[in-house]
Amino acid sequence: MTIAFPVPDRDILARREAILEGLSRLVAPDALIASEDERRAFDTDALTAYRKMPLAVVLPSSTREVADVMRFCHENGVKVVARGAGTSLAGGAIPQEDAVVLGVSKLNRVISVDYANRAMRVEAGITNLAISQAVAHEGFFYAPDPSSQLACTIAGNVAMNSGGAHCLKYGVTTNNLLGLTVVLVDGTVVEIGGDMLDAAGYDLLGLMTGSEGQLGIVTEATVRILRAAEGARPALMGFETVEAAGACVAAIIAAGIIPVALEYMDRPAIRICEDFAKAGYPLDVDALLIIEVEGSEEEIEDALARIVKVAEPFAPKVMKVAQSEAEAAAIWKGRKSAFGATGRVADYICMDGTIPTGRLPEVLAGIDRIVKSYGLGVANVFHAGDGNLHPLVMFDTAKPGEMEKAEAAGADILKLCVEVGGCLTGEHGVGIEKRDLMTTQYTREDLHQQMRVRGVFDPLWLLNPAKVFPLDGRIAA
Amino acid sequence: MTIAFPVPDRDILARREAILEGLSRLVAPDALIASEDERRAFDTDALTAYRKMPLAVVLPSSTREVADVMRFCHENGVKVVARGAGTSLAGGAIPQEDAVVLGVSKLNRVISVDYANRAMRVEAGITNLAISQAVAHEGFFYAPDPSSQLACTIAGNVAMNSGGAHCLKYGVTTNNLLGLTVVLVDGTVVEIGGDMLDAAGYDLLGLMTGSEGQLGIVTEATVRILRAAEGARPALMGFETVEAAGACVAAIIAAGIIPVALEYMDRPAIRICEDFAKAGYPLDVDALLIIEVEGSEEEIEDALARIVKVAEPFAPKVMKVAQSEAEAAAIWKGRKSAFGATGRVADYICMDGTIPTGRLPEVLAGIDRIVKSYGLGVANVFHAGDGNLHPLVMFDTAKPGEMEKAEAAGADILKLCVEVGGCLTGEHGVGIEKRDLMTTQYTREDLHQQMRVRGVFDPLWLLNPAKVFPLDGRIAA
Repeated sequence: MTIAFPVPDRDILARREAILEGLSRLVAPDALIASEDERRAFDTDALTAYRKMPLAVVLPSSTREVADVMRFCHENGVKVVARGAGTSLAGGAIPQEDAVVLGVSKLNRVISVDYANRAMRVEAGITNLAISQAVAHEGFFYAPDPSSQLACTIAGNVAMNSGGAHCLKYGVTTNNLLGLTVVLVDGTVVEIGGDMLDAAGYDLLGLMTGSEGQLGIVTEATVRILRAAEGARPALMGFETVEAAGACVAAIIAAGIIPVALEYMDRPAIRICEDFAKAGYPLDVDALLIIEVEGSEEEIEDALARIVKVAEPFAPKVMKVAQSEAEAAAIWKGRKSAFGATGRVADYICMDGTIPTGRLPEVLAGIDRIVKSYGLGVANVFHAGDGNLHPLVMFDTAKPGEMEKAEAAGADILKLCVEVGGCLTGEHGVGIEKRDLMTTQYTREDLHQQMRVRGVFDPLWLLNPAKVFPLDGRIAA
Repeated sequence: MTIAFPVPDRDILARREAILEGLSRLVAPDALIASEDERRAFDTDALTAYRKMPLAVVLPSSTREVADVMRFCHENGVKVVARGAGTSLAGGAIPQEDAVVLGVSKLNRVISVDYANRAMRVEAGITNLAISQAVAHEGFFYAPDPSSQLACTIAGNVAMNSGGAHCLKYGVTTNNLLGLTVVLVDGTVVEIGGDMLDAAGYDLLGLMTGSEGQLGIVTEATVRILRAAEGARPALMGFETVEAAGACVAAIIAAGIIPVALEYMDRPAIRICEDFAKAGYPLDVDALLIIEVEGSEEEIEDALARIVKVAEPFAPKVMKVAQSEAEAAAIWKGRKSAFGATGRVADYICMDGTIPTGRLPEVLAGIDRIVKSYGLGVANVFHAGDGNLHPLVMFDTAKPGEMEKAEAAGADILKLCVEVGGCLTGEHGVGIEKRDLMTTQYTREDLHQQMRVRGVFDPLWLLNPAKVFPLDGRIAA
């Protein structure tokens, strides 16, 4: 446990009963969770190494109820941690003992669908997958597809600006949003963006996206829906060296080909996933690329032919195009089970740096060097096309000090990403996990400018306050 | 003249000599423009109905010089109006008498190109077209293409979040930017974004884009460059009714086909452009669509075939696919000359509303009704695919009161756009032109929230202060 939490506000802890009483007047009885047993379900998210019991949990059913809760908490100086489905790998939804968790899971309706304008209005607690499912019968879908899409909510996707394997072609959350209803810290309800392209005035939609629950609570969203392609097909390419695979990725991108997904697995990851999923991956290569293209049958064949041609100079040892639905499903099953399969063989932390794609080979070599220097192992599974790395640093919780070593290795990896011109996070967000690394990416001046923007929305630092910015050097609004 | 300018600060006017003296110590002699004759070249932009002589004009040659000028102006309470090439149709670069114009035209170098990462670093005063030209020999281009691309700068494109005919497929400026160097009002230099996808912390890149010179001065930008398609081909479709053409646009978009451009011209616009450019447009239709698709020869043919099939139920009277480079050029020449050609037959103001594409027919009918009610004419030429309208409201400057009528009709048109769920501006920005209409789009609460964000960057309202927000109801930081 290397990440510090702020000391809880004793005054708030002392007033807990009065706060519970006040909240109970604002939401339905089953929407206020006060008992220790029930609160425990909300004491962490997908960064399970860290846990804090929240003061209380409220699950409002409408924008109005969210506004009432926010107004009450604001008037009483109570901190609020917004929560979607709690799938954050960066600890973005981990509570504090003096904070109320505001969960949006009951806000899960589809409000309207407008196929002609390719827009859909939803409540913010709807799951990512449910959005696509609601329009699938008309041949449409919502593009960003985090691995957690079965569970994660659009509210959380907006908070973290989530991506997914298919974001190489379609962009991340911020590229697929048109409008938001947001409850500000004092209970004010504002509309941001709308049903149209662009918006007059400043782009608060972009600012809100990725702001990790610190600028307001998103209660409704208008998302862009897209017509699904006629078909899609993945191909596998195995390479003898990391360098060849990395250079091949850079060459595909430089050639202007944008596959719908371009995923990378290294030797340990290939082995782990193949053992688990029997995906038919080659075990005698150092690097595997999964390249998916989509479109009509002709377009798919044309794109795959161009990719094969670009790849040739890098001498792939294995090259296999899925010949059936079953083969395609097996290829993806291997990749999608990577996190679960790794969890079977070791404890791990999943990092999330982003780098310019051209720097892949040297960064992969650097990651290997870093992890070995701590005596640990690493499996690399990631979105290579857009340079978004997910090194899984493996360790054994049972061995004292190993988790701390893994965290230190993870931090070194992220610093390396920043050094080559990249970034601490691609799609998981900063959360609590990378908070203290923000100074490697930004100067104090840069961070202060961001904090001043924050102060406009939340001058008292009541919204998810332990996250994103290092605890020291904080500035008031 | 219906737009009010703020009363100039008499103290600043009185200190003009001292301010000139201070500025002369910061930039080269030829980079400070003080004489009335030379300043006149900067007294307006493309909204030429409004003119104000600036206090002085400075043309710095480096980020350092921009920082020096900003620090000096900040310390002396001098307002600054940033200027790219002065092509703003919304009056975004029109000066004030008590403001220094800071032009970035001397910052026009390409700094570096990284083809593998599809990224290019440029100084902010480079023209939009020069960016594409610098990478054309490698088969790359920069996607957003405003009509003014020969002259307009990336600095101005960032300030206005500019679009263009080809943005339907590739997005507007905000979708094609990776990083910025920005000089804040007090001379602080900050880096925003970088060479990678996404960025940790808040999305200040999105916020800066479209902020119309009010949050800082952009001196460098990293833009996304894309591989140019193998080929492109436009098709023409003429329809007997506005409704049929509008419904056809909505059907093409709803079918999930994204042409690279989907332009609309109404009967007056067709006549004006055909007279001027001899483009081969049909003169017996009420609406003309120019639909361009790109890709390999096969992809082009496939896409055009699908478009023709979707269009059939709307009974196009004319359907013509360009059969040669010359035919393609003629089709585009007609469209691209629309503004110039209209200027030959009448004075006009060009509006820039955006609407959900599904509402096209009713909005076009509404525009016609509005303009007729003022006894004026209108030609409609616009980016139909993304719902970005450009009604050219025609009038005669020589007739007293006609310009005011045209402005009133323009305002009514933009209000209609907002009513149907659209927006005051698609790509021209708010500037001075639409400043007083912002209250039709936003509540006071929405505007105050934007102004509070502004206050973080520019608490004294020194940056381009007469623009974007109505003069009344302004709030201090």
